[in-house]
Amino acid sequence: MTSPDPTDGVDVGLLSAVRAGGTAEAATGDRAFLQALLDAEVALTRAQATLGLAPVSAADALAAVADASSFDLRDLAQRARTDGNPVIPLVADLTRAVDPAFAAYTHRGATSQDIMDTAAMLVAFRTLEPMLSDLDNMTAALALLTAAHRGTPMPGRTFGQHAVPTTFGLKAAGWRALILDARDRLAAVQATLPVQLGGAAGTLAAFHAYSPHPAPPDLGIRLLDEYAKQTGLVSPLLPWHTLRTPIADLGTALAFTTGALGKFAADVLTLSRTEIAEITEGAAGGSSAMPHKRNPVRATLIAATARQLPALASVLLGGLVAEDERPAGAWHAEWQTLREALRLTGGATHTAADLAANLVVDSDRMRANLNLTNGLIVAERVAIDLTPQLGRAEARALLDDATRRAAADRIPLAEALGDIAADTDPTRYLGCAPALVDAALTRQATP
Amino acid sequence: MTSPDPTDGVDVGLLSAVRAGGTAEAATGDRAFLQALLDAEVALTRAQATLGLAPVSAADALAAVADASSFDLRDLAQRARTDGNPVIPLVADLTRAVDPAFAAYTHRGATSQDIMDTAAMLVAFRTLEPMLSDLDNMTAALALLTAAHRGTPMPGRTFGQHAVPTTFGLKAAGWRALILDARDRLAAVQATLPVQLGGAAGTLAAFHAYSPHPAPPDLGIRLLDEYAKQTGLVSPLLPWHTLRTPIADLGTALAFTTGALGKFAADVLTLSRTEIAEITEGAAGGSSAMPHKRNPVRATLIAATARQLPALASVLLGGLVAEDERPAGAWHAEWQTLREALRLTGGATHTAADLAANLVVDSDRMRANLNLTNGLIVAERVAIDLTPQLGRAEARALLDDATRRAAADRIPLAEALGDIAADTDPTRYLGCAPALVDAALTRQATP
Amino acid sequence: MTSPDPTDGVDVGLLSAVRAGGTAEAATGDRAFLQALLDAEVALTRAQATLGLAPVSAADALAAVADASSFDLRDLAQRARTDGNPVIPLVADLTRAVDPAFAAYTHRGATSQDIMDTAAMLVAFRTLEPMLSDLDNMTAALALLTAAHRGTPMPGRTFGQHAVPTTFGLKAAGWRALILDARDRLAAVQATLPVQLGGAAGTLAAFHAYSPHPAPPDLGIRLLDEYAKQTGLVSPLLPWHTLRTPIADLGTALAFTTGALGKFAADVLTLSRTEIAEITEGAAGGSSAMPHKRNPVRATLIAATARQLPALASVLLGGLVAEDERPAGAWHAEWQTLREALRLTGGATHTAADLAANLVVDSDRMRANLNLTNGLIVAERVAIDLTPQLGRAEARALLDDATRRAAADRIPLAEALGDIAADTDPTRYLGCAPALVDAALTRQATP
Amino acid sequence: MTSPDPTDGVDVGLLSAVRAGGTAEAATGDRAFLQALLDAEVALTRAQATLGLAPVSAADALAAVADASSFDLRDLAQRARTDGNPVIPLVADLTRAVDPAFAAYTHRGATSQDIMDTAAMLVAFRTLEPMLSDLDNMTAALALLTAAHRGTPMPGRTFGQHAVPTTFGLKAAGWRALILDARDRLAAVQATLPVQLGGAAGTLAAFHAYSPHPAPPDLGIRLLDEYAKQTGLVSPLLPWHTLRTPIADLGTALAFTTGALGKFAADVLTLSRTEIAEITEGAAGGSSAMPHKRNPVRATLIAATARQLPALASVLLGGLVAEDERPAGAWHAEWQTLREALRLTGGATHTAADLAANLVVDSDRMRANLNLTNGLIVAERVAIDLTPQLGRAEARALLDDATRRAAADRIPLAEALGDIAADTDPTRYLGCAPALVDAALTRQATP
Repeated sequence: MTSPDPTDGVDVGLLSAVRAGGTAEAATGDRAFLQALLDAEVALTRAQATLGLAPVSAADALAAVADASSFDLRDLAQRARTDGNPVIPLVADLTRAVDPAFAAYTHRGATSQDIMDTAAMLVAFRTLEPMLSDLDNMTAALALLTAAHRGTPMPGRTFGQHAVPTTFGLKAAGWRALILDARDRLAAVQATLPVQLGGAAGTLAAFHAYSPHPAPPDLGIRLLDEYAKQTGLVSPLLPWHTLRTPIADLGTALAFTTGALGKFAADVLTLSRTEIAEITEGAAGGSSAMPHKRNPVRATLIAATARQLPALASVLLGGLVAEDERPAGAWHAEWQTLREALRLTGGATHTAADLAANLVVDSDRMRANLNLTNGLIVAERVAIDLTPQLGRAEARALLDDATRRAAADRIPLAEALGDIAADTDPTRYLGCAPALVDAALTRQATP
Repeated sequence: MTSPDPTDGVDVGLLSAVRAGGTAEAATGDRAFLQALLDAEVALTRAQATLGLAPVSAADALAAVADASSFDLRDLAQRARTDGNPVIPLVADLTRAVDPAFAAYTHRGATSQDIMDTAAMLVAFRTLEPMLSDLDNMTAALALLTAAHRGTPMPGRTFGQHAVPTTFGLKAAGWRALILDARDRLAAVQATLPVQLGGAAGTLAAFHAYSPHPAPPDLGIRLLDEYAKQTGLVSPLLPWHTLRTPIADLGTALAFTTGALGKFAADVLTLSRTEIAEITEGAAGGSSAMPHKRNPVRATLIAATARQLPALASVLLGGLVAEDERPAGAWHAEWQTLREALRLTGGATHTAADLAANLVVDSDRMRANLNLTNGLIVAERVAIDLTPQLGRAEARALLDDATRRAAADRIPLAEALGDIAADTDPTRYLGCAPALVDAALTRQATP
Repeated sequence: MTSPDPTDGVDVGLLSAVRAGGTAEAATGDRAFLQALLDAEVALTRAQATLGLAPVSAADALAAVADASSFDLRDLAQRARTDGNPVIPLVADLTRAVDPAFAAYTHRGATSQDIMDTAAMLVAFRTLEPMLSDLDNMTAALALLTAAHRGTPMPGRTFGQHAVPTTFGLKAAGWRALILDARDRLAAVQATLPVQLGGAAGTLAAFHAYSPHPAPPDLGIRLLDEYAKQTGLVSPLLPWHTLRTPIADLGTALAFTTGALGKFAADVLTLSRTEIAEITEGAAGGSSAMPHKRNPVRATLIAATARQLPALASVLLGGLVAEDERPAGAWHAEWQTLREALRLTGGATHTAADLAANLVVDSDRMRANLNLTNGLIVAERVAIDLTPQLGRAEARALLDDATRRAAADRIPLAEALGDIAADTDPTRYLGCAPALVDAALTRQATP
Repeated sequence: MTSPDPTDGVDVGLLSAVRAGGTAEAATGDRAFLQALLDAEVALTRAQATLGLAPVSAADALAAVADASSFDLRDLAQRARTDGNPVIPLVADLTRAVDPAFAAYTHRGATSQDIMDTAAMLVAFRTLEPMLSDLDNMTAALALLTAAHRGTPMPGRTFGQHAVPTTFGLKAAGWRALILDARDRLAAVQATLPVQLGGAAGTLAAFHAYSPHPAPPDLGIRLLDEYAKQTGLVSPLLPWHTLRTPIADLGTALAFTTGALGKFAADVLTLSRTEIAEITEGAAGGSSAMPHKRNPVRATLIAATARQLPALASVLLGGLVAEDERPAGAWHAEWQTLREALRLTGGATHTAADLAANLVVDSDRMRANLNLTNGLIVAERVAIDLTPQLGRAEARALLDDATRRAAADRIPLAEALGDIAADTDPTRYLGCAPALVDAALTRQATP
């Protein structure tokens, strides 16, 4: 066996097929994060220039060299060990790279966290963009399924047992409703992602001190607003170095999303079981051992993310407990956790949109499965029908006997009931499933 | 040692001081939950009566016996083992208790989950009520602290080290901002808590079958709306037996809240350390070993909840992955988890409101602590001041030397700087802390 | 709707059927915990008496009043809010209750955490006892199933799809192996549960100061050893106020256990699905809506605990990060979390032992299900058989064609293969399943 | 702002300084994992050759091409999306690369999970190796600190408040004890990491079918044993495709380790606070805003990992619930989670060993801090001393008065006590701290 070589530290998705090669992976990778750090630095200098705290040419000079492809990612990552974050070595490199006449303006007045947090928000914003679009595609695909199968009868299952009939449209309407819930939550979070700026301890004092003219008491706030404009992010009411609402909100919205997708995946996995076979993935995966087997791969990959996100969200929620003006650990625990949450959710979203668009529904099989219990699936209805005729106790006794015989002799319940008139057709016991479908389809994504 | 006696199963809060004897404990206890189950049953019969699906007197008869104090909690709990939930034995008892003329209307058409979920929503609604009021009191107390200490200088601390000065008002403003965030999230969730009604598999079919008159296709939806009215909860677009948005939202809003409270508690714990002593709890706790010791007990209890809620929320987020029309396990895992989340958060909220109202702030000590580093805390500012005079490199060298001597000889930085003119007064390096306080105080709870 | 009454705080298991009325519930309830606190106090005084640090009659006097049924649980719970733990009010009550001549010896030299931690270990020890016995019963029941079905063929399933045949004995052997793993871990933890004694900050200094004779330098260690003897727990090398190995180990062993049980439950839930029906719970649960339905209630309740324990364990693992000589929050977060972990696991263990003993296996149905895929389940084997005859490529092509026709025409693969000789009997493709069963059955619980 | 370029998916540690460039990162990277996959394939063919199931030259031919540097990681990662795991595309590439005469023996009889799981165990084994060595170095460094400071007095702190004196040696002994606990757990897990082999559904049937000679009933078991020998891993009693003990054990042992390290880090962070200053990191990190500030960077990075591991462990514990013969999701969720757990823990271990070796202890400052409370820290002792002289009540009253005056007038407690003789020297109230240190130092790592 060979020993690991020096390139072994790289993660390109070999262990995370759900996002390998996808948009979310690209948007959250180290290169993308580095670019966001650079974008944050440029925007800060530009905001200062706008307020007369720096020459415009300083911002231009910085922008000219702020290209992530010019920096050595591995070297930055390793130098980050000294001070705990990559901004410090990056600022050193950037200061060397920029026109010396403007070097002093690089990162001036800021603290590392201002840049790290702003970059994280930019990365989140950019990763959410295609995610929302995938969710839109997915809800559109589900709307088609819902409408097409508004009245397609299938067994309703509770605790794994046939209960009463439902329709596949109602099931798909439920999936869509959850996805819309997820979309609304993600969109709401995206719309509030704030820029970060507070300086060493959240007072923005250095910007006041650097001010070439007498600083008004709210100079820092004006800069915060201008910085927000430059980045396209929202201006927060306070620096949020230890007020981690945006991170917690991202974590919970992402975990909600994989949960919603996970419900969809769980149903696909169940309904595609060999014995049930009501659904198949449009293009299923193979097996290294059994060439003829077709696995519900996409649902599997989605289900796997739904097992990870709640734990990642719990770390991000835990980060709310951030002591002082900058915590020793809580903040650092967010970075990789948030990235992993973003890229897993992005991968799951894209995979799910694809799965929804290609789902193959076998309504004949659904219809056949309705008869598997020889009428047990309409026992509730028959009980209701018989009660007025026979009284509750006698109706129950008769039904008990009939269902027992239907199961034992494998005959339809109608036959076992003999002369007793009762409607045992499962397709006529759908309640308001179609009406619920109609109502559900009126809902659109919150604009 | 004695062996456990039969009453040992009872939990009255001995291991959970944060909520012992409090409102949230009472509102989430088994008795309260049982009452909510009964309320749900009564409201359902009443809703059916309103639509002509049951006689009004059936609802009256049910209401007459739906008093939680008449039922044997332990017996119900143990009989719940047979079928997995307490609704089934409760319905049996209730059917026996009610006027026999109307017994057939008890729980008619419903499934256990309709009642369990509706009861959980009622319990959540009722527990949130005092929680929101505690948070209002807390933000009011924090507003006073914020305003009073708008300009009170204290050390800003990052990674446990003095960084630059800040003001206590700015810190308190941050606490308040987080609490407002929590309040907004809880209020939003409370306003959307839905009633549950779907029948055996979410189609409301039994209600259609029971209908004494020809049922319109949307009869179930009308009943859902009426049921919502009767309970004061919201009418959902779909039955949500396996669309667990309300539970996930509750979990994350509660975890957000203890996280927000936990930030407050973490700061109180730090600032009340013997060596820092800038804050004390108004009435601190004792020690069984050291009679003279005063412990920050309330902050400790709050901090403990903030360590538990992210994990509880992760369970509730995990519950989104609920297969079929009713899952085998995911739903059952919610009940005790949600209750624990509600009562811990309720206890923490109440404790924190009390703590905020009684916090003792020692601004003299804050002022004294500002000088602990012999000027290091204003080094950033001095560096900024000196640079134009001396150039960046010389300024840095001079400052390095002066701070080293100030620390070694325990003299003020001003003295170590000698003739060099620089403003080393930490109280004049507060940036826009007061302006940020003013801005933060304009924010009110979202109505 | 009625408002909650003052007894609403009580939890008797209404929301946690898995443990309602069971041994673990009784052994972890407030009354049992209180008794453990009292046992810890008595043992400590007795240990001191043994070393001549207190009169023997002081220990006797304390033992005489140390009966949990004489104390007001609710009152203690609420007074615990003042100081953060129930030991302080308990010591006050105990000091009042004991013969005044010996009151001064109550809790002498100890800190609250000494008593709380020792009590928690006693409660854990006592709860583990019946849990281990339930697991022994369960492995015995599974051994019978394993042996009886050593060669019972059934479909092996991967990703929900039929893969190749396996035997039910091999599946049951796997369940048993996991349960033995769990049993070994719980037994190992139980055997190392330590007593706690350190005094105010872990130095045992007060015991030295109270010593009526000149204290040897290791007096505290001798007392620790003696205290261990009195409680039946292990003497630790160091006081562990902030070295939380025992708690973390308990948490992970309990979560491992519900995970192992959860695998068993997951398989029961799958195999008892209406469409699969290879297994039924011996006595299944009913439905409030569908009188004829039989739900796998026990497996459902077990599955629900497996969703909760990993999160609870994460809180207990998080408690390892306990600052100083006693932490402000980490310790308090353990109490209710550990109790919940113990009683859920105890309930799940008992429920699973019952389920294993009553499982009904339908080997005819397993046999029938093997044919569901018309031979796909032996495609791997046929491919292996054909390759030497036909070469790899031709064998694959022929098999592809035959399986496609078998599926389309719903004929057995053997028929579709026509003249090609291949063994398509799934019951002759079991590999070393029976041999694996034999090997697995040789394993016993680690003594 | 520039848009992300195609190399953005790469993670080289920019957001995870704790492991950037370290051994654990290299040992867990995609390249190392790919090599482990290849090692697993080669070992399997070699094991088959040993049993006469394949020619030895087939194993040699495979070994000749099984070099991770010859494969395209990104391409493999993306092709893994089709089938859900990277083994399937890897086997395709490998089959093409190997001498065509032996291509048929590549991966013969195995399933993807056999290779993935075996590779994961190899990666774990290799990552644990340096981790254990780092922990050995760390315990050695802590042993030196413990011995050197066996009697160095410092304040014992509980709830952040001075309680009674302790010694720094006792604190360091506690750190060492926890690290030894972690080391024992990791070593125990490493010693039991099993090879994986079961074929399509755990019966090893394909190996029987491929056997050129009549297969004995336990052929698969013999192959399992031989495979274990070839890999250096342990032979399991059963294939463990859905018996995930090794993964759960790894997860909990790793989380235990970061918890143990996290306790150490938490104490370093507290004791290095500006106001306490009893400890400094040997070489501390800088600040981008405040050039003179020294941050406890290593403790911060360690603390951050301790916030992540419990959540990752909860995912791995959750993976125990793996349905059927291979689960759809639970298994896939393990891969990236386990890797992250390994590399974070490896990074934290290395960082902590470095921190322990370079810790700077200021015993003068500890001594000075003992006097901060003007004697409160010995109040317990004085109370014990005075009680025999004055009786309990009077002693308490007198002490209350004296401590109050000592605090108010900022005079030593001895002075406030006036003529009352009492030993108020904190350095003479250390209990058996030194004896505990001696006992703790006798413990060595379990061999």
